[in-house]
Amino acid sequence: MRVRGAGLIASSAVTALKIAAQKSPAEDPGSFMRDLSDAARVLLETRPTAVSLPNGIRYVMHRVNRAKANATSGADLKLVASKAADEFVELTRTAVERIGEIGAKRIRDGVVVLTHCNSTAAISVMTTAWRQGKKFEVYATETRPRFQGRLTARVLARLGIPVTLILDDAVRYFMQDVDMVLVGADAITANGALVNKVGTSMVALAAHEVHVNVNVAAESYKFSPETMIGELVEIEERDPSEIISAKALSQIGRRVKVRNPSFDLTPPEFVDAIITERGIIPPLGAMLILQEVFGVLTPEELTEYQTYKLSEA
Amino acid sequence: MRVRGAGLIASSAVTALKIAAQKSPAEDPGSFMRDLSDAARVLLETRPTAVSLPNGIRYVMHRVNRAKANATSGADLKLVASKAADEFVELTRTAVERIGEIGAKRIRDGVVVLTHCNSTAAISVMTTAWRQGKKFEVYATETRPRFQGRLTARVLARLGIPVTLILDDAVRYFMQDVDMVLVGADAITANGALVNKVGTSMVALAAHEVHVNVNVAAESYKFSPETMIGELVEIEERDPSEIISAKALSQIGRRVKVRNPSFDLTPPEFVDAIITERGIIPPLGAMLILQEVFGVLTPEELTEYQTYKLSEA
Amino acid sequence: MRVRGAGLIASSAVTALKIAAQKSPAEDPGSFMRDLSDAARVLLETRPTAVSLPNGIRYVMHRVNRAKANATSGADLKLVASKAADEFVELTRTAVERIGEIGAKRIRDGVVVLTHCNSTAAISVMTTAWRQGKKFEVYATETRPRFQGRLTARVLARLGIPVTLILDDAVRYFMQDVDMVLVGADAITANGALVNKVGTSMVALAAHEVHVNVNVAAESYKFSPETMIGELVEIEERDPSEIISAKALSQIGRRVKVRNPSFDLTPPEFVDAIITERGIIPPLGAMLILQEVFGVLTPEELTEYQTYKLSEA
Amino acid sequence: MRVRGAGLIASSAVTALKIAAQKSPAEDPGSFMRDLSDAARVLLETRPTAVSLPNGIRYVMHRVNRAKANATSGADLKLVASKAADEFVELTRTAVERIGEIGAKRIRDGVVVLTHCNSTAAISVMTTAWRQGKKFEVYATETRPRFQGRLTARVLARLGIPVTLILDDAVRYFMQDVDMVLVGADAITANGALVNKVGTSMVALAAHEVHVNVNVAAESYKFSPETMIGELVEIEERDPSEIISAKALSQIGRRVKVRNPSFDLTPPEFVDAIITERGIIPPLGAMLILQEVFGVLTPEELTEYQTYKLSEA
Amino acid sequence: MRVRGAGLIASSAVTALKIAAQKSPAEDPGSFMRDLSDAARVLLETRPTAVSLPNGIRYVMHRVNRAKANATSGADLKLVASKAADEFVELTRTAVERIGEIGAKRIRDGVVVLTHCNSTAAISVMTTAWRQGKKFEVYATETRPRFQGRLTARVLARLGIPVTLILDDAVRYFMQDVDMVLVGADAITANGALVNKVGTSMVALAAHEVHVNVNVAAESYKFSPETMIGELVEIEERDPSEIISAKALSQIGRRVKVRNPSFDLTPPEFVDAIITERGIIPPLGAMLILQEVFGVLTPEELTEYQTYKLSEA
Amino acid sequence: MRVRGAGLIASSAVTALKIAAQKSPAEDPGSFMRDLSDAARVLLETRPTAVSLPNGIRYVMHRVNRAKANATSGADLKLVASKAADEFVELTRTAVERIGEIGAKRIRDGVVVLTHCNSTAAISVMTTAWRQGKKFEVYATETRPRFQGRLTARVLARLGIPVTLILDDAVRYFMQDVDMVLVGADAITANGALVNKVGTSMVALAAHEVHVNVNVAAESYKFSPETMIGELVEIEERDPSEIISAKALSQIGRRVKVRNPSFDLTPPEFVDAIITERGIIPPLGAMLILQEVFGVLTPEELTEYQTYKLSEA
Repeated sequence: MRVRGAGLIASSAVTALKIAAQKSPAEDPGSFMRDLSDAARVLLETRPTAVSLPNGIRYVMHRVNRAKANATSGADLKLVASKAADEFVELTRTAVERIGEIGAKRIRDGVVVLTHCNSTAAISVMTTAWRQGKKFEVYATETRPRFQGRLTARVLARLGIPVTLILDDAVRYFMQDVDMVLVGADAITANGALVNKVGTSMVALAAHEVHVNVNVAAESYKFSPETMIGELVEIEERDPSEIISAKALSQIGRRVKVRNPSFDLTPPEFVDAIITERGIIPPLGAMLILQEVFGVLTPEELTEYQTYKLSEA
Repeated sequence: MRVRGAGLIASSAVTALKIAAQKSPAEDPGSFMRDLSDAARVLLETRPTAVSLPNGIRYVMHRVNRAKANATSGADLKLVASKAADEFVELTRTAVERIGEIGAKRIRDGVVVLTHCNSTAAISVMTTAWRQGKKFEVYATETRPRFQGRLTARVLARLGIPVTLILDDAVRYFMQDVDMVLVGADAITANGALVNKVGTSMVALAAHEVHVNVNVAAESYKFSPETMIGELVEIEERDPSEIISAKALSQIGRRVKVRNPSFDLTPPEFVDAIITERGIIPPLGAMLILQEVFGVLTPEELTEYQTYKLSEA
Repeated sequence: MRVRGAGLIASSAVTALKIAAQKSPAEDPGSFMRDLSDAARVLLETRPTAVSLPNGIRYVMHRVNRAKANATSGADLKLVASKAADEFVELTRTAVERIGEIGAKRIRDGVVVLTHCNSTAAISVMTTAWRQGKKFEVYATETRPRFQGRLTARVLARLGIPVTLILDDAVRYFMQDVDMVLVGADAITANGALVNKVGTSMVALAAHEVHVNVNVAAESYKFSPETMIGELVEIEERDPSEIISAKALSQIGRRVKVRNPSFDLTPPEFVDAIITERGIIPPLGAMLILQEVFGVLTPEELTEYQTYKLSEA
Repeated sequence: MRVRGAGLIASSAVTALKIAAQKSPAEDPGSFMRDLSDAARVLLETRPTAVSLPNGIRYVMHRVNRAKANATSGADLKLVASKAADEFVELTRTAVERIGEIGAKRIRDGVVVLTHCNSTAAISVMTTAWRQGKKFEVYATETRPRFQGRLTARVLARLGIPVTLILDDAVRYFMQDVDMVLVGADAITANGALVNKVGTSMVALAAHEVHVNVNVAAESYKFSPETMIGELVEIEERDPSEIISAKALSQIGRRVKVRNPSFDLTPPEFVDAIITERGIIPPLGAMLILQEVFGVLTPEELTEYQTYKLSEA
Repeated sequence: MRVRGAGLIASSAVTALKIAAQKSPAEDPGSFMRDLSDAARVLLETRPTAVSLPNGIRYVMHRVNRAKANATSGADLKLVASKAADEFVELTRTAVERIGEIGAKRIRDGVVVLTHCNSTAAISVMTTAWRQGKKFEVYATETRPRFQGRLTARVLARLGIPVTLILDDAVRYFMQDVDMVLVGADAITANGALVNKVGTSMVALAAHEVHVNVNVAAESYKFSPETMIGELVEIEERDPSEIISAKALSQIGRRVKVRNPSFDLTPPEFVDAIITERGIIPPLGAMLILQEVFGVLTPEELTEYQTYKLSEA
Repeated sequence: MRVRGAGLIASSAVTALKIAAQKSPAEDPGSFMRDLSDAARVLLETRPTAVSLPNGIRYVMHRVNRAKANATSGADLKLVASKAADEFVELTRTAVERIGEIGAKRIRDGVVVLTHCNSTAAISVMTTAWRQGKKFEVYATETRPRFQGRLTARVLARLGIPVTLILDDAVRYFMQDVDMVLVGADAITANGALVNKVGTSMVALAAHEVHVNVNVAAESYKFSPETMIGELVEIEERDPSEIISAKALSQIGRRVKVRNPSFDLTPPEFVDAIITERGIIPPLGAMLILQEVFGVLTPEELTEYQTYKLSEA
C-alpha cells in the first residue's frame, strides 16, 4: 500500500528531521538539541497544510525531550531521534492498511455505505471488506467543487463494487436507503470533533437525524493535540474559481461575492466511531489516542509545533 | 410583474379551458359538462409537470360542479366556468406580488437571508423588502446540478442587494451567520410538507438544527389537494448527464450508476412559516388554505385531476 | 365489510335512538325533545366503553338541536332525527372500507409495515393495498397481555401477506428494517393525541426516533370532541389476571402489586398522519375533522355526552 | 454472595485454565505457553455464550504473555498464570457485592426504580440500598417471553421492597412516576453501548425521552474488549416456541414467521451511568475500564479470544 | 369576576366606539362609516399597549364593514355597531371565568403546577379547580424584575392553595417535581407562538425538555390577527431602573449597558395547549380561533388596526 | 493573581495539614500516619463548603499513603507530605492564571460572550483575552438573588470590556446574539456534570438549544472524585431572606413557602468544553483529569474525604 496524502507529507518531514539529526556534528546534548530544533523549525516554516507534519515532528521531539535529562552525549539523543523517526515512518506506512483491516469488520454483508469526498483510509476499509468477500453497495457524492467523489467511484468500481454517484444535495433524499456513512478525516480535535471536506457535517447531520451510524477512518497522526490547549483548527477558504469561472461570475455581476471554505467541522455527537490503526474509538476517546501516541505533551510542546493551516493538496 | 413558471403553466391551461367552455355549442347542462370534462382531460393528458395545472382545472371544475344542480342551461354553466377561470388567472397574476408584500414584513433590517435554487416568489419577497429600504444580505447556494443559484444571485445583485455565492455543501458551515432561510416551493402537501429542489431538506435540516427560521414562499396553487386522500407526490429523476458528462462517466467506469432526483421532501417540522398570497401560515395550516381556495372537494374531484409528475421546467 | 367494534357499538345505539324517536308520540317539539333526551340519557347510562357511542348520540342530537328553532311539530324533529341517525349508521358502515381505500395509497411497493394490536381500520388499509396488487411485508407484535397481534397475523396471513410475529419488546430491535408504522385508534383527542392499546406510544416513540412514519387509521367517530373543553380521556386499568395467573402471583408473593392499564397516550408529535374516511390529516387537523363531522358543538353538547370510560371489548 | 451467571461461567473456565497450567509438565517457557494456549483453545471451543469466559481467559493469558519475555522456566510462567487466575476468580467472587455497595449510593430515599429482566448485579444494588434502610419502590416489567421479571419481583418482595409488576408495553405509561431506571448488562462495548435483554433499549429510550437516569450494573468482565477492533457482538435469535406454542402458531397459519432475538443494543447516549466494581463511569469511560482491567491488549489478544455468541442461560 | 388588564383596556375602547357610533348624526351609511372610522383612528392613536384594543375595534369594524353593502341608512349600521360592541364587551366580561371552568378540567388531583408572572386567566384556572375541591400545589416564580410572582402567590395562598415561591433561576432545578406549567399570554400569534412576560420561553423550554405539559390561558382577544400577514409583534424594552437603581449602576461603571425586554417569544412547539373561552386548542389551532372570532379579515382590516406596542401595564 | 474562593479554602487547609505534619514528633511511620490522619479529620470537621478542601487533603494523603510501604521513618513521610502540600498550594496559586491563558484561545475576535454569576476562573479567561488585544462583548446576567453578576460586570467594565447587564430571565431572549457561554464551576462530577450557581443549567439549556458552545472554566481541584463511587453532590438550600424579606413575605401570607437552592446540575451533554489548568477537555474527560491529578484512589480514599456540603461563600 502506497503512502499517500497526509501520511506522505508527515513521513517525508520526519525523514528530513532524521537526516538532520544524523548530520549533526554536535557532541554534547545541548548542541544537538539546538541543531534538531533548528531543523524542526525550518520544516515547520514550509507552512504545512496538514496536521500530520507537526504531529510527526512532535512525535520525534517529544521522545528526544524526554531522553534529554539522562543523555550524556549528542550521540545518545541522535539514536533516540533516529529510532523515533523510524517508528513514525513505519506508522504512516502501515496505518492505512491496518485501518482497512479493523474497519472492514464494521461492514456487514448487504449494506449500503455512503461516502463523501475521497479518503484513502475510508477506501481502504471498503476495499478490504470487498476483498474479504463481503457484498455491499456504495453511494458516493460527487463532492463539489472538485468532484473528488468521482475518483472514489472509479477506485471502487474497478474492484467491482457497485457504486452510485449522487449529488451532494441528494444525500438526505437517499439517506433512508443507507446503512452506514464512512468518511475520512483531515483532522480530529481533542474533543472528538471531525474536520473534513466541506459538506461532511451536513452528511453527518442527515445521518444522525435517522440514527445511521457515522464512521470516520483516521490515522492517529490526524489527531490534533494542540486543540487540547484551546487552539482552533484554522480552515482555509480557497479560490472562487473552483466554484465559478471568472467569466461566469462577471456575467452574474461584479458585486457578487464568492466564499469557498474547504472544510467544515462535524461535532462529536454526530460521529459514532473513529476507526484508527490502534482500534475503534468513540469520538470522546480522542484524548486517549493522543496520550497513547504522543504521550503527555508539555504545554510548550503543544504550542510549539502547531503552525499549520489545513488545506487541500 | 410577469407571470412565470408554475403560475404561467396553470393560467395558460385555465385560459384554454375557458376558451373550450366558450366554444361549446351545448345547450343543456349535461352536454356542457361533457364538453368541459373532455377539455379538462385533454389538458391533463399533456402530462403536466407542476401541481398548478391540475389545481387550476380543479378550481374551475369544482365551481362548475357545484353550480350544476341549479343550472338550467349550458349557458348558465358557461358563465360560471368563465368567471372561475378569470378569477384563477387573476390569482396567478397577482399572487407573487402579494407574497412579496406579505413576506417582506418578515425581513428585519440587518439580517442575513439564505436561499436555495431560484424561486420567483422568494425573490419577490427579497426584492420587495429591498425596495422598501430594508438593508440585508443574501447567501445563495449555487444549486447543483443546474446552477440556478447563479440566476438568483444575478437578479438580486442587479438591485444592489449584497449576495454571496456558496457551495450547497457549505450551507451548514455558514448557518451560524444566517438569520433566516427563505425558499420557494414546487408543491406543498396537505400536512404541510414541502416538495422543492433537491437539497432543500438539507438546508432546512441545518437551519432547524440551530433554530434558524425556515420560510417558504408559495402561491396557494402550489398546494396539493390530492395528498389529502393519500396520494404521494411523484418525484422525477432526471438525466445523469446533468450531473456528469457521458465522457467523464465512461472514464470512471461503465458500472457506476448515476441517480439524479430533482426534488426532495422537507417535513413540516422543519418549516416555520409558509408565505402565501392569503397570509402567512404555519405548515399545518395547509389544510385550511386548501379549503379556502378549492372548497371541500369530493373524493372524485381529488382523484380525477391529479395526474402530474413534478418536473423542472 | 362487516361493521365491528367501536362502529358497531355506536351504530346500535344510534339505531336505538332512532327507534325511540319514531316511537315518540309527542306532537309538539318540546315534548319530543324531552323524549329524545330521555332516550339518549338511558343509552349513555349503559356506561359505554368507547368514544363512538356518545359521538353517535352527539351527532344526532346536535342536528336535532339545530332544527329545534324552526320546528313547528314533533314530526318535523322526528324526521331530522331519523335522517341524522341514518347518516351516522351509513357512516359507520362505510368508514372502514373508505379508510382502506385512502390508506392503501400510502403503502408503497416493497415496504415493511409494523403494526401493534388488532385494528379493523388498520387491517382494512393493508388488505386493500394487498388486493390492489401491492407487495409488502408486515411485522405484527404479539401485543401482551391478550395476544391480539396473533389475530392480526392470522387475518393478514390468510390473504397471503408475509407476516412476522415479534415480541412487543423487540420493536426497536426491528425498527431499522421497518418503513412505516400503521396502527388503529381507540380515541383521538382534539389536539391530535392518540389513545390506543398500551404499548402504542412506545412503538411510536421508537419509530419517531428514526423518522419512520407513524400512520393511524381512525374513523371520524373515534375523535373525542369533549377534549376540546379540557376533559381528559379516562383510561381503564384491567384485571391483573390478564398479566399473571393468581397462582403464579401467589408464588411471587402476596405483596407484589400488579397494574394493567389498557391504553396509553401517544403525543401528536409522534404521529405523522391520521387516515380517516374523510381524507388523511396531520394530527393537528383533528379539530377540523371534529368541526366537519359534528359542527360547532355548544359547551353543553360537549359536556353532556361524554360519560364513557375507554375499555377493551 | 453466591457467584452466578456470567461470573460463574468465567470463574469456572479460569479455574480450569489454572489447573491445566499447574498440570503442565513443561520445563521451558515455550512448551508451557503451548500447553496453556491449547487449554485456552479447548475452553473456547465450548462455544461460550457470555463475554465473561473469553474475558477471563484473556485476563490470564495477557499477564502470562507479558511475563514471557523475562521468564526463564515454565515454572515462572506457571506462577504468573496461577496468580492471575486467582485474581480473576476473586474478582468474580466480589464484584457483584461491591457493585451493590457502590450503586446503593445512587438510590435516594423515596424514589421509584424501574427495572427490566433479572440481573444479579442490579438486584444487588437494590437489596444493598434496602438493607441500608433506604425506602423506595420498584416497578418490574414482566419481561417477555420468559417472565424473568417475576423472579426479580419475588427476590425483592421477599425483602419487603414494594414491587409493582407491569407489562413491558406499559413502561412509557408509568415512566412519569419513575425516578431512575436500573438494569444489568450482558455485555458492554468499547464505546459504551449496552447489550442486554431485548426491550432494554426501549426502556432506555422511554427514560431518555423524559430525562430519567438510566443506570447499568455491570461487572468489569462484562465489557467486551474485542469491540475495540471493530467486532460486532453477535446476537442470538432463540426458538419461536418461547413466544408462541407450535399449536397456537399452526392455528394462525404456517406462513407466519416468528423472530425471537434475545438481546438488543442500547446506544451510549441513552445510558447515564455504568456501575462497576471499580466505580461508576459514564458509558464513554468503557475504554478506560477495559484498559485498567485487561491492560493494553495486542490486536492478536483481542482477536484470539472472541469466539462467543451471546445467549441466555 | 372583575374585568382586568387587557380585557378592561379593550372593553373600554369598544364602549367608547359604541358611544361614538350612537352619537353620530350621520344619516347615510357612507357618512356613518367615516364617523366611525374617525373614532376608531382616535382610539388607536392612544398608542395602545395590548393586542386586545385593536382586536376589539377590529371585531366591531369587521361586522360593520360586512353590513355596509346591504345598509340603507346610518341607523342600520349604528345598530350593527352597537350589537357588535355589546357582544365584545360581554366577551371580555365572561372570558376569564369561562377559561377558569374549562382549564380547571386539566388540573388533576395531587399535581404540582408551576406558574410564571401574574396572569388573571391562569389564576382563574387554578382558583376554579381549587374551589371544585381539587388538591394541588403551586410553584410560583418570583418573576424579576417586578416580582409579580409575589402577587400570584398571595392570591393563591389566600384561598389556601399551598404555594412555594422560587427564583426564576431555579425553574429547571424544580422541574422534576412539576406536573404541569400554566401561564397566561400577552399575545398569541397566528402560528401559535406565545408572547408573554420575559422568562416564559425559558420556563417552557425547561418543561419541554422533560415533557412536562405547558398550558397557556388566553382569552381569544389576545390572539394577534395581523401576524397572519407577516407583521411581527413589537416588544418593548423597559427602563433599566427596573433592574438596577441608577446609584448601583453608577457604582458598577457608567459604561455598563442595561437591557430590559419585557416579553419573550415561546415557539409553538413548546406549548401543549392553549385554554381559551372557546375551548382548548393546540397552538396550531390559533388560526381557527382567529377565523371563528374575527371572521376572515381582509388584508386592509388586518393592516389598519395593528398599531400597538406590547407593554406591561 | 490573588488566590480566591475555593482555591484559597483548599490551600489554607493544605497548609494547615503541612504544619501539622511538620509538628508531628512521631518517629515511626505508623505514628506519623495517625497524627496526620487526625489533623486531616479535624480539618474536615470544619464542615467544608467546597469540594476543593477535601480534594486538597486527598491530594496530600494519597501521596503519603503510597509512600507508606517503603518508608522507614516518620521523617520520610513528613518529607512526602510537605512536598505534596507545596505542590498543591502552588497548583491553587497558578491554576486560575493558566486557565486564563488556555481559555483565552477560545475567544475569537468580535464574539459575544454570555456569563452567569461571578467566577474567578471565567473572568480570568475574559480578561486575559482582552489584554491580548481581542475585541469582544459580554452579556452578564444579574444572577439573583445576590446579584453577583454586577460584580462580574464591574470587573470587566473596568478593563474597558463592553458589558450588558441583563435579567436571568432574558437569557433565551438574547441567546440569538450570543456566540459562546462561559461560566465557572463549583464542582465537576466524574461523568462531567457541572454543579454551579442555580440557573446555570437553564443558561446551558438555552445555549444548547441553538448550538451555542458552553465553556466551563474549572480548576482541577473542582473535580469531585467521590462521585466515582456513586456519591451525589449535596446541594445547600439557603435562607429565604435572600429572596424575599421577612416583611414582604408576611404580606404575601404566612403559608407561602420559599425554597432557595444555591446550585443546580448541568448534565454533561450541555457542556462543550471544560477549561482546566491542564488543558481543555470535553466533559467526559473528567475521569482522566481525576486520574491525572489524584492518581487512582482507593475506595477508602474516595470515601474518607468527602464530607462537605456545597455552599456559597
